[in-house]
Amino acid sequence: MENKDTAVEEGDTMADKATIIVHSGDMDKIYSALIIANGALAMGMEVSLFFTFWGLQRLKKGGLEKGPLSKMHMLGLGKWMVKRKMTKVGVASLEKLLQDFNELGGKILACDMTMEIMGIRKEDLRDDLISDYCAVGTYVNEARESSITLFI
Amino acid sequence: MENKDTAVEEGDTMADKATIIVHSGDMDKIYSALIIANGALAMGMEVSLFFTFWGLQRLKKGGLEKGPLSKMHMLGLGKWMVKRKMTKVGVASLEKLLQDFNELGGKILACDMTMEIMGIRKEDLRDDLISDYCAVGTYVNEARESSITLFI
Amino acid sequence: MENKDTAVEEGDTMADKATIIVHSGDMDKIYSALIIANGALAMGMEVSLFFTFWGLQRLKKGGLEKGPLSKMHMLGLGKWMVKRKMTKVGVASLEKLLQDFNELGGKILACDMTMEIMGIRKEDLRDDLISDYCAVGTYVNEARESSITLFI
Repeated sequence: MENKDTAVEEGDTMADKATIIVHSGDMDKIYSALIIANGALAMGMEVSLFFTFWGLQRLKKGGLEKGPLSKMHMLGLGKWMVKRKMTKVGVASLEKLLQDFNELGGKILACDMTMEIMGIRKEDLRDDLISDYCAVGTYVNEARESSITLFI
Repeated sequence: MENKDTAVEEGDTMADKATIIVHSGDMDKIYSALIIANGALAMGMEVSLFFTFWGLQRLKKGGLEKGPLSKMHMLGLGKWMVKRKMTKVGVASLEKLLQDFNELGGKILACDMTMEIMGIRKEDLRDDLISDYCAVGTYVNEARESSITLFI
Repeated sequence: MENKDTAVEEGDTMADKATIIVHSGDMDKIYSALIIANGALAMGMEVSLFFTFWGLQRLKKGGLEKGPLSKMHMLGLGKWMVKRKMTKVGVASLEKLLQDFNELGGKILACDMTMEIMGIRKEDLRDDLISDYCAVGTYVNEARESSITLFI
């Protein structure tokens, strides 16, 4: 692959890269996204997280821990219970996972259309962590050459 | 790749193609699916959308705009508010996005098992937009050679 | 690809393999996961299902059929109605689909972090069906060389 930004030719090979759309803002899904992302980085992959819709809410200042569970009342496992158990078994907080992701070289992309729709300004977001504000074209360019593509 | 319909060999390369399962009927997820799909088409990729379960409900005549938001009450952003804001910032309606998808050469596949389970007949669906009524085998054949695969 | 367990090189090719994360425990999503998985196996692909979070609840003894629908009240189609209609149109039960998956050589992986967080012990799970108890590294190794990757 001589030029990463040109269109992938029919029959081209894939890069060792993961591109994940984080559409959901649910706490358990943000955990899944970051655990997969950090695992992939630790194993030498390139990783991009593209935050959109409810997911982008989690990148607002103070917003990371504010997501609900995707299944609130199942098994009586409430949100704070899950967090307490996670700490107990040694899973890092979302904040720590996000910082690690950034330090390990992961790329955080914010969907600018979501910002417009939801009236989110750059100053509302954790600008220090965001690599780029972009649209679907950037996502497609990353995803089309990624060996792992997920929508969470 | 000489024959697209034969099984992909171990170690084969991927086509510049996106295959997306639309399982959800939520309005925000249908937006995501169509925005990604149209973005990929605009960048020269082949795209197939495979509508199944609640997603297929959206292909019923008059059904496209009927999906709820996946997070109804978050931030006080109700469904009609989201739609109004989308129009305001220049995002096309779902109907326009779907028409564009069709005109740009995207392929819409309807899951025939879902039709049987939910008692949906061809005449209930927007037959003019649907390329094929098919089962999981068709999906697997498309997806196994796609560089982007998503479940929405 | 000489060694499946070593890191995939930049520009490497993909194996004819599907790796699916089953995060949701919703009945309709478990159906989707197993129908896709069995379809892919039937067409000669390798398939791994990685059960995590609410999805892992479904692997508890007696837990397979216990998931709710992801959209409970849409169209008045309740859970038991969906199951009855599925039987009527000849779709196998989740139990049958899972047994078939196992017999066709599919691999079921259980997320050990979820077990710790939710206090699930091996004896609570359907141990006979589970190929391995593992963490994100195993998932990444499978997914990075798979032509189909999904998060359900």
